[in-house]
Amino acid sequence: MKYSIGIDYGTQNARAVLVEVGSGKVVAGTEQSYPHGVMESELPSGKKLGPDWAIQFGYDYYKMLVLSVRDLINQSRVDPKLIIGIGIDTTSCTILPLDSQLEPLNEQNVFKNNPHAYVKMWKHHAAQGQANQLNKIAEKEKMPFLKRYGGKISSEWMIPKIMQIVEEAPEVYDAAAYFLEVGDWLVSKLTNHLVKSNVMTGYKAIWSQPEGYPDASFFSLLNPKLNNVISEKLNVPILNVGNCAGFLTADIAKDMGLTQQTAVAVAHTDACVVPAAIGMNRAGQMAMSIGTSTCHLLLGNEEKIVPGICGMVQDGTLPGFISYEAGQASVGDVFHWFVQNCLNSEFSKEASEKGIDVYQLLEEKAQKLKPGQSGLVALDWLNGNRSVLVDVDLSGMMVGLNLHTTPEEMYRAFIEATAFGTRKIIKTFETYGVPVDELFACGGISTKSPLIMQIYADVCHKEIHVSNLPQTSAYASAIYGATAAGASRGGYDKIADAVGVLGNHEKKAYTPIPENTRIYDALFGIYEEMHDFMGMQSNAMKKLKEIRKEMGGA
Amino acid sequence: MKYSIGIDYGTQNARAVLVEVGSGKVVAGTEQSYPHGVMESELPSGKKLGPDWAIQFGYDYYKMLVLSVRDLINQSRVDPKLIIGIGIDTTSCTILPLDSQLEPLNEQNVFKNNPHAYVKMWKHHAAQGQANQLNKIAEKEKMPFLKRYGGKISSEWMIPKIMQIVEEAPEVYDAAAYFLEVGDWLVSKLTNHLVKSNVMTGYKAIWSQPEGYPDASFFSLLNPKLNNVISEKLNVPILNVGNCAGFLTADIAKDMGLTQQTAVAVAHTDACVVPAAIGMNRAGQMAMSIGTSTCHLLLGNEEKIVPGICGMVQDGTLPGFISYEAGQASVGDVFHWFVQNCLNSEFSKEASEKGIDVYQLLEEKAQKLKPGQSGLVALDWLNGNRSVLVDVDLSGMMVGLNLHTTPEEMYRAFIEATAFGTRKIIKTFETYGVPVDELFACGGISTKSPLIMQIYADVCHKEIHVSNLPQTSAYASAIYGATAAGASRGGYDKIADAVGVLGNHEKKAYTPIPENTRIYDALFGIYEEMHDFMGMQSNAMKKLKEIRKEMGGA
Repeated sequence: MKYSIGIDYGTQNARAVLVEVGSGKVVAGTEQSYPHGVMESELPSGKKLGPDWAIQFGYDYYKMLVLSVRDLINQSRVDPKLIIGIGIDTTSCTILPLDSQLEPLNEQNVFKNNPHAYVKMWKHHAAQGQANQLNKIAEKEKMPFLKRYGGKISSEWMIPKIMQIVEEAPEVYDAAAYFLEVGDWLVSKLTNHLVKSNVMTGYKAIWSQPEGYPDASFFSLLNPKLNNVISEKLNVPILNVGNCAGFLTADIAKDMGLTQQTAVAVAHTDACVVPAAIGMNRAGQMAMSIGTSTCHLLLGNEEKIVPGICGMVQDGTLPGFISYEAGQASVGDVFHWFVQNCLNSEFSKEASEKGIDVYQLLEEKAQKLKPGQSGLVALDWLNGNRSVLVDVDLSGMMVGLNLHTTPEEMYRAFIEATAFGTRKIIKTFETYGVPVDELFACGGISTKSPLIMQIYADVCHKEIHVSNLPQTSAYASAIYGATAAGASRGGYDKIADAVGVLGNHEKKAYTPIPENTRIYDALFGIYEEMHDFMGMQSNAMKKLKEIRKEMGGA
Repeated sequence: MKYSIGIDYGTQNARAVLVEVGSGKVVAGTEQSYPHGVMESELPSGKKLGPDWAIQFGYDYYKMLVLSVRDLINQSRVDPKLIIGIGIDTTSCTILPLDSQLEPLNEQNVFKNNPHAYVKMWKHHAAQGQANQLNKIAEKEKMPFLKRYGGKISSEWMIPKIMQIVEEAPEVYDAAAYFLEVGDWLVSKLTNHLVKSNVMTGYKAIWSQPEGYPDASFFSLLNPKLNNVISEKLNVPILNVGNCAGFLTADIAKDMGLTQQTAVAVAHTDACVVPAAIGMNRAGQMAMSIGTSTCHLLLGNEEKIVPGICGMVQDGTLPGFISYEAGQASVGDVFHWFVQNCLNSEFSKEASEKGIDVYQLLEEKAQKLKPGQSGLVALDWLNGNRSVLVDVDLSGMMVGLNLHTTPEEMYRAFIEATAFGTRKIIKTFETYGVPVDELFACGGISTKSPLIMQIYADVCHKEIHVSNLPQTSAYASAIYGATAAGASRGGYDKIADAVGVLGNHEKKAYTPIPENTRIYDALFGIYEEMHDFMGMQSNAMKKLKEIRKEMGGA
């Protein structure tokens, strides 16, 4: 029996699993928090950060991996020699500046107090000005890459983040030998092979297999100092996911209690790694990872230009397919906000009397409502709109309130809004020639809330298969770890082979209920009207945000 | 020293005051509830009422008056001989069918179990079908009265209510010698003089001094049985408010503990009686009675056609002026709904720790916010829009939600929405040639919430004078009572004289703050965009309500 380790770094913590390679059985699992957490207001020294910052210590990632591996071995009592591979997925775009020895710059005394020397997380949104500037120039220059990204580069991505560093901390830019995604850094460090992933580079760093990066002339328009950014700071070999990046170095193997025969897979992103775990294997299948936000990954055969998607990458999730990514910027976050802010005290009282949490109580109450009964339609843009409008300045909305409106009605309306958002994404793909015919869901919300999944099936008119894996992304990374090891060592030679075995576990199916889809079709019409008016025609939400910022609002 | 009694019948109870006629001092006050309450689901017999019904026992009004008068005398120990007048105001249009002896039909055994024999309150909304039919016919026939009522007759008013009776209970229609507003019935009963008020008739019964009622031919189009409704059922002398209707009959004086020398004023409506109490005396002044809903009364010199107002009546509040009425269907109701449904448990906890109620806590927290800081704009139509869109099918809306939005921000946004609604009404009057240059406010909210009043002043760009009378309408009715008695008995001969003395009490002034008005101008622009799109251009709210009703929603 052979084993593979998968680790999935999220925003708050990392989950790791030890998987039996032949059966897919999860024999151990663990969860570690970032030792220094996420810094959003200040450095440990007390130095203040600006608004919208979110940074971390690079070494936290390494420490959590070591702790996780040791814990998995301890729990399972598995012989480390039988552990043939490690797969890693991280949030993205989460980058850090490194010296030529791949040491994070924040480890140097001179940079300890410089926020730009730390890991900039995906949700660091302080480079919005740079993203706007980049998009303006790219549009003016008619850069062909824009089409691959739905027309806009996000402030979350690599180039705007590097632009912010070069503008605000040129000393950090100058000192950096490399800027890497944190997942790529980990893999490179573990194997002592400098390598990066086609997925992160393709989705988040304006690169594609056929076209490469934009020319130096484009980067010099962004900032003269960026003229040679590709050749000087980003010039690292790119490997496709599903490949082996190398094997653990002696020191690191010892640190972890593993052997040097442990293969390390090319890094993946937490969102894009998922299709392997849930057994996706043909064009037309779409995965939804439903957490605080939702990431949609659609397998396609042909390259089509679809407005408002986050990106498309050849071999970007599973080899042999074009992977289209789309997203909703807030889903679980909306429900969490609602529960924290909008739930009257009767709910907490009733929930504690019944001995259940308020989410369960809300689910119970919302379950009893019929579609349309509340007369409410909401827009789910409380954290902006990622797809298909790609506009962080949009905001949430609720229409149809009356003096009888109840909290459970509003809660259900927000659930429906996120489902309408998904339907809008599916509709956009279909309109632009990329078929979507089967939905898969994973992530905490999909297993915890049958109500939400049924609403999604009803709203989208599609059967949804929900994976009951407790840690889908970590499990998927273990699949990539087993494939990195190869068949000769007891793993798999190809991802498709591994997925055929390990992705083939039981899933719960939700089937659309015809009397609900009829009502949801009518409500979706209203959602679309609001979507188009508030998202494209009116300037109201942008003006409101401007005023909010001017007046010092959150 | 002489005294006058004023009684104000509201939806839940009646407030009465005893006022010293020379000084305006309130020497006693009392409050009585309707003995049978408001019946909205069934009669005492258990007979069920349809949706949107709201009915009462006619005699409850009389009993409450007797109890009130006795309580005022008991409390004050004033010699009843010194009480020279009684003024009465009621909600409107609140009507009842009467026999030829002015006995309510529901007192007859044969009608005890017939809901149509009872008082139909203003908020009885079950005649919407009849109102729609009336409006359709009136439009087709190009009836000139439509213009006086902003283009539409409400389901709350007298003719739709009588249409409902004639259609659903022709036996009640046939048995009725009169249909009267409950205020007119009380005055007629007290004095044994059949008389009705120009205000109720003018605002709610399609009548005006110069034009009278529509012709019989119009009524026969509504229903052949209504052909002679005016001459057979509504043929009662109309007196202007400010006049004396008569004096107490011997029996009633005895019942109340008063003398037969007590003058009774022509009945007024609870909304329209207010300007007297707060000392309004020239064109351009507008009163806002801010309670569960808001009623706006504007004094003008000339008759102008203003779309979306509720009505205009010559001498309708104070003699010598055209009174324009407009309204917002839910104001305090919105805040109440919010507090009941949308306030998280932290609020109740914090409020009880501080020993204040949640409204006070919300006020404290919302007070700390700057205009625009929340990035929110709401539409206050949770009970439809009365002015200027006149559409009960509209609903509430909130735009600009984000993951940091707090309950106090939403609460403040709803307050601002009601202020924007008032500004829209003022703007409409001004656009159609009726100037508004000074605002007066009364009602519980205006005295309880300095925050709300300051927001109104800032949003409307106008100074607001808030009367601190505890019972404005009852006090105003006492002014009418004193005027009914006349100067020879120690009262006043003209309303203007009485108002000059009794309306001249101290008021708290709220002055617009320039840095706030600047932001509110920008936010009002967004409110207007939403108002026009959701209220006129889009059909979304109506469709949502249709679906809500189809699916059995509240």
